Amino acid sequence: MQRQVWKLASRPEGDISDGDLRYETEEIAPLKDGEALIQTLYLSLDPTNRIWMSDREQYMPPVELGAAMRGGIAGRVLESRNPDLAEGTIVAGLGEWATHVTAPAGTVSPMALPDGVDLAAAFGTFGGVGMTAYFGLLDIGQPKEGETLVVSAAAGGVGQIVGQIGKIKGCKVIGIAGGPEKCGWITDDLGFDHAIDYKAEDVGEALDRLAPEGIDIDFENVGGPIMAAVLERMKTFGRIPLCGLISQYNETGQTQGGAPAFWETMLMRRLTVRGFIVTDFAPRFAEGAAALGGWMAEGRLKTRQDVRKDLAKADEHVKLLYSGGNFGKLLVEVSEP
Amino acid sequence: MQRQVWKLASRPEGDISDGDLRYETEEIAPLKDGEALIQTLYLSLDPTNRIWMSDREQYMPPVELGAAMRGGIAGRVLESRNPDLAEGTIVAGLGEWATHVTAPAGTVSPMALPDGVDLAAAFGTFGGVGMTAYFGLLDIGQPKEGETLVVSAAAGGVGQIVGQIGKIKGCKVIGIAGGPEKCGWITDDLGFDHAIDYKAEDVGEALDRLAPEGIDIDFENVGGPIMAAVLERMKTFGRIPLCGLISQYNETGQTQGGAPAFWETMLMRRLTVRGFIVTDFAPRFAEGAAALGGWMAEGRLKTRQDVRKDLAKADEHVKLLYSGGNFGKLLVEVSEP
Repeated sequence: MQRQVWKLASRPEGDISDGDLRYETEEIAPLKDGEALIQTLYLSLDPTNRIWMSDREQYMPPVELGAAMRGGIAGRVLESRNPDLAEGTIVAGLGEWATHVTAPAGTVSPMALPDGVDLAAAFGTFGGVGMTAYFGLLDIGQPKEGETLVVSAAAGGVGQIVGQIGKIKGCKVIGIAGGPEKCGWITDDLGFDHAIDYKAEDVGEALDRLAPEGIDIDFENVGGPIMAAVLERMKTFGRIPLCGLISQYNETGQTQGGAPAFWETMLMRRLTVRGFIVTDFAPRFAEGAAALGGWMAEGRLKTRQDVRKDLAKADEHVKLLYSGGNFGKLLVEVSEP
Repeated sequence: MQRQVWKLASRPEGDISDGDLRYETEEIAPLKDGEALIQTLYLSLDPTNRIWMSDREQYMPPVELGAAMRGGIAGRVLESRNPDLAEGTIVAGLGEWATHVTAPAGTVSPMALPDGVDLAAAFGTFGGVGMTAYFGLLDIGQPKEGETLVVSAAAGGVGQIVGQIGKIKGCKVIGIAGGPEKCGWITDDLGFDHAIDYKAEDVGEALDRLAPEGIDIDFENVGGPIMAAVLERMKTFGRIPLCGLISQYNETGQTQGGAPAFWETMLMRRLTVRGFIVTDFAPRFAEGAAALGGWMAEGRLKTRQDVRKDLAKADEHVKLLYSGGNFGKLLVEVSEP
């Protein structure tokens, strides 16, 4: 049996170029004990993919040159030598950019599909992005009623959920996104209090207007000048869950995120900055999924997926993340669910 | 009745210059209800004094031009219209660089003098520096047995206590200080595991040699290149209590502490940076004083004061802090206790 798979052919210099990723067909090796063969239904494309393609300092080993590209997947167990994963089970976890993934024990787990939630929405809500939003905002951001929360990349996979949890917790929520369509969606459909279109207005001036009281929580997804504009306006005892620095990921080498240092500001205003990666919270994922599922069932949490067809174009789709071209959680439908 | 008092004549540009502070004699106004007249016995000179002299962003209002210079004091109540402060009581708190301080209600409070501890040691241990060390290390640094703690300005008022609490908590403690005398003292007398003489060796190379395992906690007092060398070597999930940035306080304007940004490092290694000011923990000072007093009584905590004579020379004494000229907590004996 064969599969199609994207392999990392070369580490991108700057933006991902044609040829950095190579689409191949290869034989699937017979399963070993503990493994399951997954037919990929959805591939999750995430900002961190670009980090894994590089050899900059990162939180997991980079993808090796010539190896299959790593990615989050949702799929169906086709064949199993793992007693915990029966054939036909819908699973999600860390896999590869491939039509089929041979999953060692512990890398994927069965997925709950709440009533009325399709697979793409479930994967795009209860997967990595939902856990990132939930634990990053609640554990690190510690939102309190009446506080002001700013979230960047607000119409993206994580940002959309962060803002809605912020509203559930009684915060004034300001989302930063690119373009009137995304800005209208996060305010009109998701209930954010305000949106700032970073492509059309000066973020600092907009924050001065919309949050003259200052900012209690910066849920930071982008880094660079947008982050700097938010940090300058943090209130005393503010918290900064440092989730991502996407504006810098296409830089070659260690960039430190593009925004200037804020040591003295952090000291004088007694800010807390904490970097985190979603897997740090893995032991508590069930708690996060239960909370998100409950809010979704109550109609208090809506999520939007940006589902693209055709795994063979994943190398193009992934670039949307770095240009702001996706609108909602970016997924590739690899095989019809 | 008259007092001698230092007033802020002009905001220093760079280093403190002759004439920035002016020593004056003035009449002491009669006490109002709630006030107490304190005869100053010791004046605490602290790195933050230079911040108060400036109009950069800070955590309290800057000292106004022409006003008495603010400082921590220990003294004796000479006269009181505050029922909580009987005449003769030894008190400590926030006052002025002056022979006598008219203390409004709530600015000073009675001081406990443990058996066998003289006033200078008590003031230099249980005052601001002790609370800074105790809460900064324990609440923010969260030291665990076997972890590696680095403290800069290690022979200073705060650093000496931080390192000893680190040892009490089972950490491997590395102190960074200037000169062989201070380095010998923190290892031989205080029990730090290692000292790095930043004046004689490259801090980064020394850390590579002494802490090849990496650093769990950076108790940061100085900023600049020394901070950068420590941050580069932080371990995953490291904590950085951001207590001070003394290497930058003589810069004019907002400097951001001299060290480069570390956003991407903070993200990838999931570091926590938290700025704090000792008064943030004021409601818990009794807890801190009890713990420090207990360790001192058990002989596990020793502190050194650098007591200078003559309030009239306070403008010279304070400069010692920024040149590393003090050895232990810097105090001025204003009047013999």
